[in-house]
Amino acid sequence: MEKREQLYEGKAKKVFATDDADLVIVDYKDDATAGDGAKKGTIRGKGVVNNRLSNNLMKMLAEKGVPTHFVEELSDRETLVKKVEIVPLEVIIRNVAAGSFTKRLGVPEGTVLKIPTIEFSYKNDEYHDPLINHYHALALGLATQEEIDTITKYAFQVNDILSQYLLGFNIRLIDFKLEFGRLPDGSIVLADEISPDTCRFWDATTGAHLDKDLFRRDLGGEEEAYREVMKRLLGE
Amino acid sequence: MEKREQLYEGKAKKVFATDDADLVIVDYKDDATAGDGAKKGTIRGKGVVNNRLSNNLMKMLAEKGVPTHFVEELSDRETLVKKVEIVPLEVIIRNVAAGSFTKRLGVPEGTVLKIPTIEFSYKNDEYHDPLINHYHALALGLATQEEIDTITKYAFQVNDILSQYLLGFNIRLIDFKLEFGRLPDGSIVLADEISPDTCRFWDATTGAHLDKDLFRRDLGGEEEAYREVMKRLLGE
Ligand SMILES: Nc1ncnc2c1ncn2[C@@H]1O[C@H](COP(=O)(O)OP(=O)(O)OP(=O)(O)O)[C@@H](O)[C@H]1O
Ligand SMILES: Nc1ncnc2c1ncn2[C@@H]1O[C@H](COP(=O)(O)OP(=O)(O)OP(=O)(O)O)[C@@H](O)[C@H]1O
Ligand SMILES: [Mg+2]
Ligand SMILES: [Mg+2]
Repeated sequence: MEKREQLYEGKAKKVFATDDADLVIVDYKDDATAGDGAKKGTIRGKGVVNNRLSNNLMKMLAEKGVPTHFVEELSDRETLVKKVEIVPLEVIIRNVAAGSFTKRLGVPEGTVLKIPTIEFSYKNDEYHDPLINHYHALALGLATQEEIDTITKYAFQVNDILSQYLLGFNIRLIDFKLEFGRLPDGSIVLADEISPDTCRFWDATTGAHLDKDLFRRDLGGEEEAYREVMKRLLGE
Repeated sequence: MEKREQLYEGKAKKVFATDDADLVIVDYKDDATAGDGAKKGTIRGKGVVNNRLSNNLMKMLAEKGVPTHFVEELSDRETLVKKVEIVPLEVIIRNVAAGSFTKRLGVPEGTVLKIPTIEFSYKNDEYHDPLINHYHALALGLATQEEIDTITKYAFQVNDILSQYLLGFNIRLIDFKLEFGRLPDGSIVLADEISPDTCRFWDATTGAHLDKDLFRRDLGGEEEAYREVMKRLLGE
């Protein structure tokens, strides 16, 4: 697999073309941003952790029936994935109130929600990824009803599988963001990443943050926390 | 029916107890507010228009199968209604992009949506009625799944019935906000009001605003517009 021209540089990853038009290489950076880009910094080793964790979790999810873009880990920071057309929705599942949810609704952080919730943000940088609902997504032509049903089903499956899996490592899955994409045949697969950048992980015993909130909130210890998650899940 | 102590004074209406514990009297004021209370003013005659229009529309909706709180019009500004426990959701239906929807999502005002949308705001003044979805409403215990299904069904029925009805008076129904309440037996009825305060009405020919946007946006002519809607619908 030949790595060709860079197609995109995002805040956390670069995407490269390959000699196969249906495959791209994702290259994970240590760059970290927060507060809609207001805070910029570096979390040393983050790229390696996120790449390896995300691949590990996606492999596990695929085995349990959730199709993903994952093809092959090429190096510590590089992974070959199926190229998709990203559905312009950030898909957020919440088990426990935290972050923007607590600020918008006045619900104390840590409140266990009566049911897990799913929500969609419209992936639109200029408008700061505004919260929408599935009617809005349909009304704006962002996805079809069938795609929304599939995405909703997969997202809750991911929640069930990951919550249980992580608890085995004494980690509570508080909330997380997923992105889905369309393959050339129109089918939906889980894409992007699953990592401490995109999930809230709390130590199940102490409640300690094991995720990007350490960076977002200037709490410190983010490098250690990312490594700790990798150590628990991958044993290293 | 005896009018007793005032139970509540809102921005647009006062609510009074009666000698029947299951009934209250709503008294419509001319007070107008906009921009989350930032702008305050008066629209002369608004209370009369909104009271009479809302009653007229609710009667029509009840005949077509949507249960409402309406009991009897007592005077130009006063109406006897069934007392309900308001479900703490503002239920908004949109046919055409306007107002906050255009600002949040960057969709030009006047864009016809591919499908009518429903959305819920959590009625919470301190948090400025934040947008939520039905999962959030369930997760926070604001309503049951059955109530949400009923509210959704009624809201789309109101949209179908009102859109068609208003078009007969050369008015386009752009969007509107409903509130629903629980009767003592737990059943859901349409409550609050349906008026140029809570709907966007555009003249179907000229596109002229016939609603509170004239006040919100300092366009002027709101008194005439409210009277015009009453004249078209009630012939006076
Ligand atoms: N399988 C895939 N095929 C094509 N693009 C993908 C795939 N998986 C993820 N992407 C996209 O690649 C980019 C990864 O970069 P990164 O996550 O750093 O972006 P970002 O800064 O979060 O910005 P944004 O997600 O808004 O583009 C994202 O745009 C993501 O949506
Ligand atoms: N049938 C009903 N029984 C009891 N309360 C009702 C009924 N219909 C409407 N209400 C409530 O009566 C009040 C009417 O006052 P108004 O519309 O002026 O309030 P407001 O300023 O919009 O504020 P808010 O709706 O946030 O209380 C509202 O709180 C409304 O929810
Ligand atoms: Mg990203
Ligand atoms: Mg009101």
